Amino acid sequence: MSRLPSVRSLVAALAFGGLGFAIPAVAEEPALEIVGMGSFHVGGRLAEVSGQPPRDIVFTPGAPPARIDPNGLYAVEQMYAQWFKPRTERGRVPILLWHGGGLSGVTYETTPDGREGWVNWFLRRGWTVYNSDAVERGRSGWASPDVWPAPALHLPVGNPFERFRIGQGEGSYSHDPAKRRVLPGNQFPTEAYDQFPRQLSPRWTTTDQPTIAAYIALVDKVCPCVIVFHSQAGQFGFRVAQARPDKVMALVAVEPSSVGDPARVDVLKAVPTLMLYGDFIEQDPRWPTIRRTGIGFAERIRAAGGHADVVDLPAAGIRGNSHMIMMDRNSSEVAQVIQTWLQQKGLWR
Amino acid sequence: MSRLPSVRSLVAALAFGGLGFAIPAVAEEPALEIVGMGSFHVGGRLAEVSGQPPRDIVFTPGAPPARIDPNGLYAVEQMYAQWFKPRTERGRVPILLWHGGGLSGVTYETTPDGREGWVNWFLRRGWTVYNSDAVERGRSGWASPDVWPAPALHLPVGNPFERFRIGQGEGSYSHDPAKRRVLPGNQFPTEAYDQFPRQLSPRWTTTDQPTIAAYIALVDKVCPCVIVFHSQAGQFGFRVAQARPDKVMALVAVEPSSVGDPARVDVLKAVPTLMLYGDFIEQDPRWPTIRRTGIGFAERIRAAGGHADVVDLPAAGIRGNSHMIMMDRNSSEVAQVIQTWLQQKGLWR
Repeated sequence: MSRLPSVRSLVAALAFGGLGFAIPAVAEEPALEIVGMGSFHVGGRLAEVSGQPPRDIVFTPGAPPARIDPNGLYAVEQMYAQWFKPRTERGRVPILLWHGGGLSGVTYETTPDGREGWVNWFLRRGWTVYNSDAVERGRSGWASPDVWPAPALHLPVGNPFERFRIGQGEGSYSHDPAKRRVLPGNQFPTEAYDQFPRQLSPRWTTTDQPTIAAYIALVDKVCPCVIVFHSQAGQFGFRVAQARPDKVMALVAVEPSSVGDPARVDVLKAVPTLMLYGDFIEQDPRWPTIRRTGIGFAERIRAAGGHADVVDLPAAGIRGNSHMIMMDRNSSEVAQVIQTWLQQKGLWR
Repeated sequence: MSRLPSVRSLVAALAFGGLGFAIPAVAEEPALEIVGMGSFHVGGRLAEVSGQPPRDIVFTPGAPPARIDPNGLYAVEQMYAQWFKPRTERGRVPILLWHGGGLSGVTYETTPDGREGWVNWFLRRGWTVYNSDAVERGRSGWASPDVWPAPALHLPVGNPFERFRIGQGEGSYSHDPAKRRVLPGNQFPTEAYDQFPRQLSPRWTTTDQPTIAAYIALVDKVCPCVIVFHSQAGQFGFRVAQARPDKVMALVAVEPSSVGDPARVDVLKAVPTLMLYGDFIEQDPRWPTIRRTGIGFAERIRAAGGHADVVDLPAAGIRGNSHMIMMDRNSSEVAQVIQTWLQQKGLWR
């Protein structure tokens, strides 16, 4: 680790628009060797439904009907996590990967164009990885309208294209790939864009509190740890760290779309934080505000005596990143920025 | 493989209520060594929604609202699959694990009481494994009421306890673990029952055809293969094999709750089939009929010149299995029955 520059020189260099260190060229990708793997659900509660009539349901053609009483107790708001353990553990603590809104842990698995995602990337470098599906998404399940009265929001296929800085904003998506207007220089593998919306998960806008509760339960179960969190998980990462600052060794906020409790930033002063932003932000109507909020929160952490590095990737010479940085063609290059920073924090040996 | 008895002696022995061979005592569990891992979505279609007004949605507190036009094209009915590749490949083809109704691929991961599930078990024996979430479940996502008008069915926590031959039928579940009436000798890890309903996934009764279509797309992508399928996936396993008989080297039906097209059993005559049933079936109002349907289908396959072995586990000396055999305390013992049968079919070296 002595070959790496100090954090101070990294931050100083960033102020001049460079990373301040050469990202090591990886001649040979380290081997993927997983020797442990499992999954579990954590958190959640039992919700009671009452006053509904029983129903007879034929579950599969030919099978006799089963009488289902919809009244009773339901398991809701639990969260699914899958973990992988590498043969040679080099991370001092596990890395938790938390995805963004309308998505699931699939975000960090294989990229839409078939390259390995960040789960594999960090496993190859000896980190134990926990990849989870937030409450309501993927394998975490979701509650009935009796329990969650608000309707779920389903995103059309073109929505992430226009909103995640892949295309040139509103109206840039077309069902015809030849007519899509991509932001020039974009690193998203646009030729495989049609694979991406198949990962979309219906979402609610009313489940933030149960999601935070389940993430706290996850942290209580598996940390100390590093949390890498994306987009909507901005508030989840920061608020959960504010609830359990002693269990979070570092936070890596990848384009957080929201932040923690500004009244309690002092709690984060012992939790080093890295915040990353990609390209094309000035060309978008929403992203300058989102980034300003994130940077403002990082400034508050520093003002409270904490440590928060903000890396503007294009200013540091890493250009073309969409909002889905972990899927972009240069996803490994950005992962290396995170890895180098974590090494500098003494979290890898 | 020469140490193993012929299929004929196995089947003959089964007729006498025994397995006909000693299940080898595994002195040391083979190592788990995964050297490749990834995921993808397969199948599905684009569904169009039109005539709905646009909506402004604040996705996360503090973020500016985003205008969402609910009209447009949605990715629906795709299926998620995750794959793992062992260091030393001994299966001649991959194994596909297909879960039952109201569940997801989590079925085959860690058991509710924290033991390794069948994904790991078969990986340890050198099989490449594909574990999928059927259409509508888990990481496959689900469609809006605009696309699927029928409501989803949510199962209360006690439903599988009473319906899956864990408890003594209707009324046997209580929220108080001390008051639950378990079937005596049950192998389900009942002390960890409360973990199981957290895996439940809302389901529809109207998605069989899209599910079959997505499984066919999966088979087209990754087979030749062996398919191990459970419960509701009975019809999926048999019907998909009927659609792609040349791509399916063997079928393992674990308590199938439905079967294939009886008019087309001749298509299955080149696909060896193993069918397994657990314990307590005669004590349940529904299971004798379900099992009769399965055995009848196996008989039709044999009458058509095909090969179908039916193993009644308690008759073969393996007692106490609930419907969730892959989670039961003796799940490895049953996996070994499958493994031995696959070896006899020449599918493992």
